[in-house]
Amino acid sequence: MSEETFNIDKNKTFSTWYDTILEKADLVDLRYDVKGFVIYKPWMMIPLREIARLFEVALEEKGHRPVLFPTVIPEKNLRKEKEHVKGFEPEVFWVTHGGKKKLEEKLALRPTSETAIYPMFRYWIQGYSDLPIKIYQNCSVFRFDTKATRALIRAREFHWIEAHDAFATEEEARKQVEEDMEITKKVLYEKLGIPFLFFERPPWDKFKGAVSTFAADALMPDGKVIQLPSTHLLGQNFAKVFNIRYLKKDGSYGYVYQTCYGPAYSRIFAALISIHGDNNGLIFPFEIAPIQVIIVPIFYNKKEFEIVVRKCEMIRDMLVRNGIRAEIDLTEKTPGAKYYFWEMKGVPIRIEIGTKEVEEHSCIVFRRDLRTRDKIDDSQLLASIKMIASDILENLRNRAEKFLQENIREVSDLAALKRVIEEKGGFVKILFCMREECADKIKEVCSAEVRGKILGSKDKVEGNCAVCGKKAREVVYVAKAY
Amino acid sequence: MSEETFNIDKNKTFSTWYDTILEKADLVDLRYDVKGFVIYKPWMMIPLREIARLFEVALEEKGHRPVLFPTVIPEKNLRKEKEHVKGFEPEVFWVTHGGKKKLEEKLALRPTSETAIYPMFRYWIQGYSDLPIKIYQNCSVFRFDTKATRALIRAREFHWIEAHDAFATEEEARKQVEEDMEITKKVLYEKLGIPFLFFERPPWDKFKGAVSTFAADALMPDGKVIQLPSTHLLGQNFAKVFNIRYLKKDGSYGYVYQTCYGPAYSRIFAALISIHGDNNGLIFPFEIAPIQVIIVPIFYNKKEFEIVVRKCEMIRDMLVRNGIRAEIDLTEKTPGAKYYFWEMKGVPIRIEIGTKEVEEHSCIVFRRDLRTRDKIDDSQLLASIKMIASDILENLRNRAEKFLQENIREVSDLAALKRVIEEKGGFVKILFCMREECADKIKEVCSAEVRGKILGSKDKVEGNCAVCGKKAREVVYVAKAY
Repeated sequence: MSEETFNIDKNKTFSTWYDTILEKADLVDLRYDVKGFVIYKPWMMIPLREIARLFEVALEEKGHRPVLFPTVIPEKNLRKEKEHVKGFEPEVFWVTHGGKKKLEEKLALRPTSETAIYPMFRYWIQGYSDLPIKIYQNCSVFRFDTKATRALIRAREFHWIEAHDAFATEEEARKQVEEDMEITKKVLYEKLGIPFLFFERPPWDKFKGAVSTFAADALMPDGKVIQLPSTHLLGQNFAKVFNIRYLKKDGSYGYVYQTCYGPAYSRIFAALISIHGDNNGLIFPFEIAPIQVIIVPIFYNKKEFEIVVRKCEMIRDMLVRNGIRAEIDLTEKTPGAKYYFWEMKGVPIRIEIGTKEVEEHSCIVFRRDLRTRDKIDDSQLLASIKMIASDILENLRNRAEKFLQENIREVSDLAALKRVIEEKGGFVKILFCMREECADKIKEVCSAEVRGKILGSKDKVEGNCAVCGKKAREVVYVAKAY
Repeated sequence: MSEETFNIDKNKTFSTWYDTILEKADLVDLRYDVKGFVIYKPWMMIPLREIARLFEVALEEKGHRPVLFPTVIPEKNLRKEKEHVKGFEPEVFWVTHGGKKKLEEKLALRPTSETAIYPMFRYWIQGYSDLPIKIYQNCSVFRFDTKATRALIRAREFHWIEAHDAFATEEEARKQVEEDMEITKKVLYEKLGIPFLFFERPPWDKFKGAVSTFAADALMPDGKVIQLPSTHLLGQNFAKVFNIRYLKKDGSYGYVYQTCYGPAYSRIFAALISIHGDNNGLIFPFEIAPIQVIIVPIFYNKKEFEIVVRKCEMIRDMLVRNGIRAEIDLTEKTPGAKYYFWEMKGVPIRIEIGTKEVEEHSCIVFRRDLRTRDKIDDSQLLASIKMIASDILENLRNRAEKFLQENIREVSDLAALKRVIEEKGGFVKILFCMREECADKIKEVCSAEVRGKILGSKDKVEGNCAVCGKKAREVVYVAKAY
């Protein structure tokens, strides 16, 4: 590995790029003995938990508090909300035995935790002063997905944060949905540089049991979209089923209004590496990189080695003292092989130090996103690194934003839709009647889905449905999706 | 709740104390619909993740790297190591169905992850340069324990960190066991103030599949001991079963030597609150407390309220800026009710501020462990809090250490052992022949267990077994255990 260069055209052969980088960068191991379950390796674990932490911090800033519910849900609870169970039942893993003993009641491995948590809300919520409740948990969920699995993107066990909130009024619940979107923007766009469009899903594509579903779709390099966090207005549907009522100030009882929000961070990680990587491998935003600065010593004999490594260690120690994950590569590879290796691994900044740099009190600083090198004075190093770190994030975000914007197109009939979806991919705007049979027609003809209407869109709805020709009710976006 | 005082004699009625504080302090909810599974609430979650973080940091400092394996283990892997599966089989939860479909192979919810991880070691380890491997994961594990469950102490799902290491030589593996003990000491004793004794377990009480098992036993207020982290020398047992071999420098192949280490931090949390709490409720060490400093304003009218709260906010902001979890209690309760409430919740430091404190540029600082109050100048506040924080930890540790030492006794025959175990509890030292039938006799007569011999003990083995009178081979400690 160490001597090879990674060179795969990400946009033209994304599938190969993705499968290869997962293995070469040692992010996951796919050889686990159960289909759809993969092993997360250290190079993935560090960014993964940084992403989870970003969501946790953002949620706690907005008043959410951490909890942890059991992994198993009793069958009778899962079955209470009819729509909900219908949606999830085909995908539930069932625990039926403890030791050799058959359990009295089957237990579901949580596919999502509404039916674990809401029976408790009934106990926790008595009067108006108990509201709002805003909680979240960081856990893994399990879905016996019968479609083809794909590591991190469509997995049978994946990792997410799920927030569950209850309010006295519908207005507060709707505000929470907006807050969830703000959190999504703050983490995905601002911190991770992942641009997305926020859709209200059409009624037939809602979360099962919800009044409405809002979801962030990002665009993958192959032109397919990927759903990232979604937030659901549950209204009083679950409250009525689980009898979650509260005593109002006026002495009457009311059902609570609920929302839930689920950033699946293992999937976000998959989108992150796919969107930011390039033909040379991964590119991590600085904040979440497993190693943020890799230092490569350059020397030609033992005497040079000592002088150079001494400086490398000083620089490394200075960076670590300042909270930066910095390491020196002291392996026996050539400098060139080290460069390729760490570029492939996505380390955002590389420092090269040879005897010249020792003499001149400077370093060569390489930034992974632009692949440019600059000489920086030692006295300016820390400040430069901080500046480059924020500049890398901005550049990654801009690049991804440009790609997303260039891949939003508009058509007016089904034939054009099919052509654009097949030839270009991306999002395609159409006028739409909002009937499920027309969505089915699109799926049949284009293998693409109606992702919904953009929230707060100012698109004018004038004309007829691109599919059936009847009067259009919305402007919607269509795309192939993971 | 808010107006009541918590006053339960912890040492005399520990069981009542424990059950009551879990509920009153809102640490867990026991009303989940599946026996042996509980809900972790926010007041528990923050210290819990701080404890996990302490172990993660300590493990990473020693070169362990994070991974995450699937929650499920295929039946055939679990069955490979015969001793191991015999030990765990009665306790395994089995997943048998996905949706309505019967799975081709049953999947175990991991009771521990040796049989998930070691098949992968076979791929990861080829030559000597791949060694050592030192990894850990933070996850939940599942055991269909047929004994009575007890929240956090004996649960069917609990949370732990498990480290799994592989080495070229037995010597390195033995050193790792020592390193695991150092980590245990660093976190439990130094950071959490929990004293313990480290035992080598007798052969019949080893981890199933291990060569030897070493475990930390702490002493609970009722005189029963609780096993905290254990570390296992696995030798080549698993390596032979899973065929984990490496190419040595001399061209021959050898099996690796393995160790594993499992700090169950949900159980450590239970021990922590039990050991440090007092008759007034919880006492958290400062570093892991959910709220580290609670500020209570004292005022008698609206004008005073404004002046006092302004100062409270300034103090709170100053503390938060310095990385301290500080909050102001602005509820409508009386100051006295607030005091009792936060004392019961275990907040280590309380600051009381009234008009007098505003005028005198000072605060009243109350420390929870000693329940003493001192007037501190505002200019000295931050330094004082830091000093008190470290002093609280030292005091809690010393108190617990004294209790542990006072409860180590020595007897020379079975009748005396039975009497001391029943009347005093704690650890009882005896001379012992190291035969399992004598251990069984102790269990039968005293309902107590041979916990093993102390590592590095200088006790002289002179005399006869306290049970059978035959020649003694070791000095061992006996105790009732959770």
